[in-house]
Amino acid sequence: MFNPRVLEIPGSLIRTIAAKRQPSSIDLGLGEPSLKPKMAHFEHAMAYVRSHGVKYTQNAGEHALREAIARHYDYPHMHRVENVCVTTGSQEAMFVTIKTLLDPSRDELLIVEPAFPAYAKMAALEGIAARGVAMDEAQDFAFDAERIVAAIGERTRAIVICSPNNPSGRVISRDQAGILVRALERRAGDPIWLIHDEIYREQTYIENEAYLADSYPYTIVTNSLSKSNALTGLRLGWILAPEEFIEQAIKAHAWVTSCTDTFAQQVGLHVFTTLGGVGEHVEWYRRQQSAVVNALRKSGLRFIEPEGSFYACVRLPDGVPSLDAAIALVEEYDVVAIPGIAFGAMFDAWLRLSWVAPIDRVTEGIDRIAEYCRSNALVS
Amino acid sequence: MFNPRVLEIPGSLIRTIAAKRQPSSIDLGLGEPSLKPKMAHFEHAMAYVRSHGVKYTQNAGEHALREAIARHYDYPHMHRVENVCVTTGSQEAMFVTIKTLLDPSRDELLIVEPAFPAYAKMAALEGIAARGVAMDEAQDFAFDAERIVAAIGERTRAIVICSPNNPSGRVISRDQAGILVRALERRAGDPIWLIHDEIYREQTYIENEAYLADSYPYTIVTNSLSKSNALTGLRLGWILAPEEFIEQAIKAHAWVTSCTDTFAQQVGLHVFTTLGGVGEHVEWYRRQQSAVVNALRKSGLRFIEPEGSFYACVRLPDGVPSLDAAIALVEEYDVVAIPGIAFGAMFDAWLRLSWVAPIDRVTEGIDRIAEYCRSNALVS
Repeated sequence: MFNPRVLEIPGSLIRTIAAKRQPSSIDLGLGEPSLKPKMAHFEHAMAYVRSHGVKYTQNAGEHALREAIARHYDYPHMHRVENVCVTTGSQEAMFVTIKTLLDPSRDELLIVEPAFPAYAKMAALEGIAARGVAMDEAQDFAFDAERIVAAIGERTRAIVICSPNNPSGRVISRDQAGILVRALERRAGDPIWLIHDEIYREQTYIENEAYLADSYPYTIVTNSLSKSNALTGLRLGWILAPEEFIEQAIKAHAWVTSCTDTFAQQVGLHVFTTLGGVGEHVEWYRRQQSAVVNALRKSGLRFIEPEGSFYACVRLPDGVPSLDAAIALVEEYDVVAIPGIAFGAMFDAWLRLSWVAPIDRVTEGIDRIAEYCRSNALVS
Repeated sequence: MFNPRVLEIPGSLIRTIAAKRQPSSIDLGLGEPSLKPKMAHFEHAMAYVRSHGVKYTQNAGEHALREAIARHYDYPHMHRVENVCVTTGSQEAMFVTIKTLLDPSRDELLIVEPAFPAYAKMAALEGIAARGVAMDEAQDFAFDAERIVAAIGERTRAIVICSPNNPSGRVISRDQAGILVRALERRAGDPIWLIHDEIYREQTYIENEAYLADSYPYTIVTNSLSKSNALTGLRLGWILAPEEFIEQAIKAHAWVTSCTDTFAQQVGLHVFTTLGGVGEHVEWYRRQQSAVVNALRKSGLRFIEPEGSFYACVRLPDGVPSLDAAIALVEEYDVVAIPGIAFGAMFDAWLRLSWVAPIDRVTEGIDRIAEYCRSNALVS
């Protein structure tokens, strides 16, 4: 009994590892900031509730918040209220986007890998075909537009790109974005849409990063305040897209969750209307990234220097499956790290480390992983 | 382009009428309380955020909240943490329930009508067959178990019952629930599930009301704090069901919204752990219901006496379509009421009035509707 598509959803590998965590563990598995959110945003929302209660907003979200989001990002094809649908975190933004955009009887979703497992799982839940296109390990998984274009098939209707990337930390450059966009523009027939997951946008450490919506009109952006403002639990996200798409997405969103928490929307409105609000944690991440890169250099590990996100990936010794490594690390070294296999078979030689813990803990964790890799390389 | 199932979703009739509202209008169209929520629940959540931030909770929700919900309702087959999945309002609770329970290739959802349009629209969005079974107008749409049982087809996998009912205000009695449950228990083969939408539970004005989960083990309850505590905008709901179902529903919920707002969950925890918290507005609704029934009696209108909810339905003169009536009322009488057609063709002779506005406004609105009906009955 029950819907077979739900029954077939496997348990989360990330949660399996996290369940082995001890109070003493050095946790480099976390997917959320360790910073605290600023209370001023919450005080504003409290004052709002005192005067207005917490009534429903429009399905698409509070007008002022939609406007503030559209203006903040100011993309050429989508800078108006009508381009924004506020959602329950970027998770619902992505779910509604995939559900609205793709016709299960016809379309295919192309996922640029390594990738957060949610995209493929959401597609499976909707009965939508999905296929991955792997970036090149020899290039440290840099975004490679030619590889992406070469992977486009007849049924490909959309390509999902997470940049800054979870897990790799790579960021798509303006050069590569240009090659991708020009190739898509040259195609005949219905356009292929780009879905740009910008969730780590405020954790970017390079200067030539590309925002696909700047140059390609068939771009759908999903984002939230979860990572930028340490508001993961607030579940405030949005879809930013051309009006013809948003109009349809609002209808799907209306039947999935009706509308987003009014209190959370007021918190978000305060973030967007505070000067520098969205970027209030940027400096902390820059300092932390620099310290982590130093620690990784000293460790002797092969690692991918993070251009964005709050992850760093390290290469395991040849022949060591990442799940074995993650289990050994948590059980014998008291360090939690996420096995690369969680992001697809092509990432099985890697571990994903998050570095939101205090820097001395992160450094100690890196040292223990280096020790594990050294012992394991000798043994094998 | 786009998913045809989303393209086919029609606009909301309720919103079409609401859009014609003027600042001067008497609004009997509202689907949410006019009371303010108690700030103590929010102060608790603020204190929580100050110490803990707003991190993700488990997908299924905060352990303490799940436990408080399970204990509060204390249903025989589902009184433990494992029986609860916290959701983004009862809208996501119903969406996830329908998505998890029914196999689109095989199953049919039976909807007891009149009904809130969301159930049929969610089923359509999921490609799930849905069919309505209408209660009898001659009986003022009282829940009639024999009619429901007679409508069960070979593919019927679940029956959705909203009691207290939106729009009719009827409540299923223990006698009728007993007949329904015994008939379902006598059936061979896979069980048919009952989905009980309990959203208006704290607005019940009779003594022999039935809660289906009390007597039938294959019951899934959806509910929220929206109506009971004037927290519509908070989006805090839940699914309460047997563990074998919740286990699967959590997986669907995890990919739809990940988890529910941590702040909202803390508000909810305070409601459930405050003595009388869930029932804090019960007395106000009882007094209001009694005053509204008096006003309706004086008006000379045919109406359905509300056994629950904060709606009252009035009968239009023969041959007047409800949409015409609703448009005439808002344009000529400055009263917003919801046309019965929004709840199915079988309810087209009726208007749904909500009575959450101050009682003198509600009474004035009823008087104007009575005037409209008198003029219209004379004309036709």
